[in-house]
Amino acid sequence: MTTPMSRQDLEFLLYEWLDVETLTSRDRFAAHSRETFDAVLELSADIAMKCFAPANKIGDAHEPYIGDDGKVVLPDEVVAGLAEYRKAGLISASFDDELGGMQLPTVIRQASAVWFQAANAAMSSYNFLTVGNANLLAEYATDEQRETWVRPLVEGRFSGTMCLSEPQAGSSLADITTKAEPAGDGTYRITGTKMWISAGDHELTENIVHLVLAKIPGGGPGVKGISLFIVPKYLADGTRNDVALVGLNHKMGNRATTNTLLNFGDGTFGADSAPGAVGFLVGDEHRGLSYMFHMMNEARIGVGFLATALGYAGYRASLDYAKVRTQGRPVDQKDPSTKPVPIIEHADVRRMLLAQKSYVEGALAFGLYCSVLVDQAATAADAAERARIELLLEVLTPIAKSWPSQWCLEANSLAIQVHGGYGYTREFDVEQYYRDNRLNPIHEGAHGIHGIDLLGRKVIMQGGAGFAALAETIEATVERARGADGLAGYAGELHSVVDRLVKVTAHIWSAGDPKLSLANATVYLETAGHIVIAWIWLEQLLAAGNRSGDFYDGKRAAAQYFFRYELPKTGPQLDLLTALDRTTLDVEPSWF
Amino acid sequence: MTTPMSRQDLEFLLYEWLDVETLTSRDRFAAHSRETFDAVLELSADIAMKCFAPANKIGDAHEPYIGDDGKVVLPDEVVAGLAEYRKAGLISASFDDELGGMQLPTVIRQASAVWFQAANAAMSSYNFLTVGNANLLAEYATDEQRETWVRPLVEGRFSGTMCLSEPQAGSSLADITTKAEPAGDGTYRITGTKMWISAGDHELTENIVHLVLAKIPGGGPGVKGISLFIVPKYLADGTRNDVALVGLNHKMGNRATTNTLLNFGDGTFGADSAPGAVGFLVGDEHRGLSYMFHMMNEARIGVGFLATALGYAGYRASLDYAKVRTQGRPVDQKDPSTKPVPIIEHADVRRMLLAQKSYVEGALAFGLYCSVLVDQAATAADAAERARIELLLEVLTPIAKSWPSQWCLEANSLAIQVHGGYGYTREFDVEQYYRDNRLNPIHEGAHGIHGIDLLGRKVIMQGGAGFAALAETIEATVERARGADGLAGYAGELHSVVDRLVKVTAHIWSAGDPKLSLANATVYLETAGHIVIAWIWLEQLLAAGNRSGDFYDGKRAAAQYFFRYELPKTGPQLDLLTALDRTTLDVEPSWF
Repeated sequence: MTTPMSRQDLEFLLYEWLDVETLTSRDRFAAHSRETFDAVLELSADIAMKCFAPANKIGDAHEPYIGDDGKVVLPDEVVAGLAEYRKAGLISASFDDELGGMQLPTVIRQASAVWFQAANAAMSSYNFLTVGNANLLAEYATDEQRETWVRPLVEGRFSGTMCLSEPQAGSSLADITTKAEPAGDGTYRITGTKMWISAGDHELTENIVHLVLAKIPGGGPGVKGISLFIVPKYLADGTRNDVALVGLNHKMGNRATTNTLLNFGDGTFGADSAPGAVGFLVGDEHRGLSYMFHMMNEARIGVGFLATALGYAGYRASLDYAKVRTQGRPVDQKDPSTKPVPIIEHADVRRMLLAQKSYVEGALAFGLYCSVLVDQAATAADAAERARIELLLEVLTPIAKSWPSQWCLEANSLAIQVHGGYGYTREFDVEQYYRDNRLNPIHEGAHGIHGIDLLGRKVIMQGGAGFAALAETIEATVERARGADGLAGYAGELHSVVDRLVKVTAHIWSAGDPKLSLANATVYLETAGHIVIAWIWLEQLLAAGNRSGDFYDGKRAAAQYFFRYELPKTGPQLDLLTALDRTTLDVEPSWF
Repeated sequence: MTTPMSRQDLEFLLYEWLDVETLTSRDRFAAHSRETFDAVLELSADIAMKCFAPANKIGDAHEPYIGDDGKVVLPDEVVAGLAEYRKAGLISASFDDELGGMQLPTVIRQASAVWFQAANAAMSSYNFLTVGNANLLAEYATDEQRETWVRPLVEGRFSGTMCLSEPQAGSSLADITTKAEPAGDGTYRITGTKMWISAGDHELTENIVHLVLAKIPGGGPGVKGISLFIVPKYLADGTRNDVALVGLNHKMGNRATTNTLLNFGDGTFGADSAPGAVGFLVGDEHRGLSYMFHMMNEARIGVGFLATALGYAGYRASLDYAKVRTQGRPVDQKDPSTKPVPIIEHADVRRMLLAQKSYVEGALAFGLYCSVLVDQAATAADAAERARIELLLEVLTPIAKSWPSQWCLEANSLAIQVHGGYGYTREFDVEQYYRDNRLNPIHEGAHGIHGIDLLGRKVIMQGGAGFAALAETIEATVERARGADGLAGYAGELHSVVDRLVKVTAHIWSAGDPKLSLANATVYLETAGHIVIAWIWLEQLLAAGNRSGDFYDGKRAAAQYFFRYELPKTGPQLDLLTALDRTTLDVEPSWF
């Protein structure tokens, strides 16, 4: 069986392109080497294939349900697979040594995680949330909180969630109504309802650490009044906290991840006189959203990886299928008595494979690039350099989340198409990938939110410094490519669209009307995304150099596909942005 | 509850634009009037909403299965709803009076059917296949066959299928292996396996009439050796024919349509000495595929309608949601204490609604246009005029099937996106529409097949006469629009892309290498599709004229969206086609 992720591609990206071994020269990663990196990746591939992949269809077909005792029931295979993962200690990958972590670079942790995401997206999310939760707390929690909550999270004994959305407030966190009242003993009492909480309840771990956004009465309006709380399912002394599972959402895909409606402080488990679930403030009051963004930025890159992994798995499945499924004959073969050929011989099937390859390998490379930036920012010796990297990462994060969510979903649709009718059945894997992946443009900020984040915030922050850093970084690649064998054409094309993007960005903000400037923020996001991925493909070509062999020829073919079929799509998008089109502003609701 | 289809839009398209009342001046439709048309449409909307819509989720959640007695079990609501449909006599809509039909125009039959497709796509397919089957037989069967099989089909007592694909031969019919041996008594004995047979078995009707492609030994190679047979589940005397249900396919969507693997002549129901299922030849030996294309062309337009109906239903659902769901504030409203607004106030939500509207209303209009062509061709007094219409229809058919299958699926994705997390759950309707619609780019000719059909066959047939007819028809619209208030700009843009398409078509075929010419046939199909839909939007604008009111303003806004956001996408596509790009030809299978 072909693996849903490619070792060769990962190794090319990590070592031949990103040269992640150089990270080991930094103090934080000094204990590591290529050998330790490879050992983690090898172990990850092994557990993912043995314990996650076989449970993928099972978890899809047997959705979690609430048993008679009120507890969530998951299939045995899902429970057992996740236990193996925790046993292997992989949750601890990137945490500090002093917390029991392996202190690996984030990029290695992501390269490890992508194996699990590709093997079983829904199962992988339990770990993903736990890591994100613990990362946030490792940064902002008190020493006592770290000992009580973070250490067991890193050990895999506890798991974590992030509780932001409410039934009436998803994209608009300003409108959350969950309340946190000081209890007088330094703790708070939390009351409210949280919606869409992934991994919000289950029996997989001893405890669940919810990170909850809530408002302390008297705080500022909107997002300024939001604070962040640790609200565990069980308190440190083992008593049940008043966090009640109200219901499970029944989803199109990602079914093995429980997705829950939770009530905090509705009295289900509350026995004492002070109503509300017990919560412990993280950091300072009213600064909750800024802490949560720490986790959200990481989670957004992680969602990009999730989308990428699903796209990658579908690409590999459809490639396998295209090589063995015979059907039809070449256009110039008129004799019907000749044998049918493998469908990979047909131009249109190759188009669908090249498109998938250009999307999923482009997205994987980009995700790893962003992860290296996380590591560089965390370990930069120079404050200015750190600031530059952080700004670049801020600009890239909305794209790292949204581009794979859009295009690796499209890859999954193409993977179905390559399979024909078989791809539409549950006997094959690709329809599940497609259903699973449709979540990714929705959660961790809906697609359109990232357009507003990119155009309305990130490209203009600090006088446009982050956006300028991106343009400079791309132009540096262009310069290198101009001098490289056979890459001058691509370099010229990339330069030309980057130049247009820079100009159109200034033009958009010269309109003097934020409503008009942001009217086509999603188009801007998608345009910038395609340009960034073209840049990442050019980077890969530079890394491939003139090396010969199928693997490198494949990289060149996929890059060629992206530059010829995909990048030109930005032309009409840039035209539309330049025109400051008002169509979406001028239409009246009553006209629909 | 908002209906999943719009009466007002249908009436605008049928009466204000296509002026279908003029069809009643033709002999065939002389008994009809706007009143009889409206009565059928009213009845259709009524039954669709009462008997089909409530069964939509039920049919999805309770997939058909094979009971202990070997019979297919469907939910009661599905069975009852289809019985109501048959009782209303709607299957007979467009059949000849002498066969018990209402002799309505095809365009009215399609406008009736689209209500059922929008209310319950999976249930609608039973009727769709029966009508297509009976239409073919009404054209090519003997009088005796018509009495035996067609009349009960039209009455709704029997239902029909089309049995083309086999496990090893889907897109490539040349490779089917099902055999038909003459039995010596004028009948044939059929042996073989057919795959993906929708409505292939069930207990909904007294009998099932399979139309089966099979090869008579000694016939020509490939498609030239294919003949067409009536192979009923039960013979006229009531004895069971040897057609055995081997299994049901488990699909991502469209679940209430049984989709089957059938064995013909495997002995399951065969008792006599001559093995094989009894088959009755339709028309002449070895001409089966040309007869089947009669049904397939109709079925392809019908699949376009199916995709359109699902897109339409999703659009209407997301529009309803966007009007009532409140979230966030306008860009220029900085005060978080103000009330959240309905999400339809946000530009990006309007973009998603306008995109859906431009796709689904464009597709519906185009489908109805093609249906009028069917009626005009069937009733044209002048042979040359009939030939011209038939050629135009040949060129448009691959687009009528593929464009809605691609873009109304995209509309369904946007409908999910408008709903946010709720749209990803099975509590709402849109995720089912998306799953149901994903079938449409696959069946009735996979997407890429239509590219080859259009570019490799239709645009060059009869010296390019059909393609020339299309270009002339579009140019006539352009000319009218040049003189109309406010439409000159659109007219100029449409003229410019049509002109490029004409030139690039000639250029592609000047390459002297069919492999190269067809390498980007799918890109060609998609380009031509967008141009055709832009034309259809311009036609709608001409029909709307200067009329005021929300409905007409909505048409103008959707057309504006299509011309500004969609039509420009053809620019880079035409560039790629002009370049005769070889990327998909030059890539080696080993490079993936």
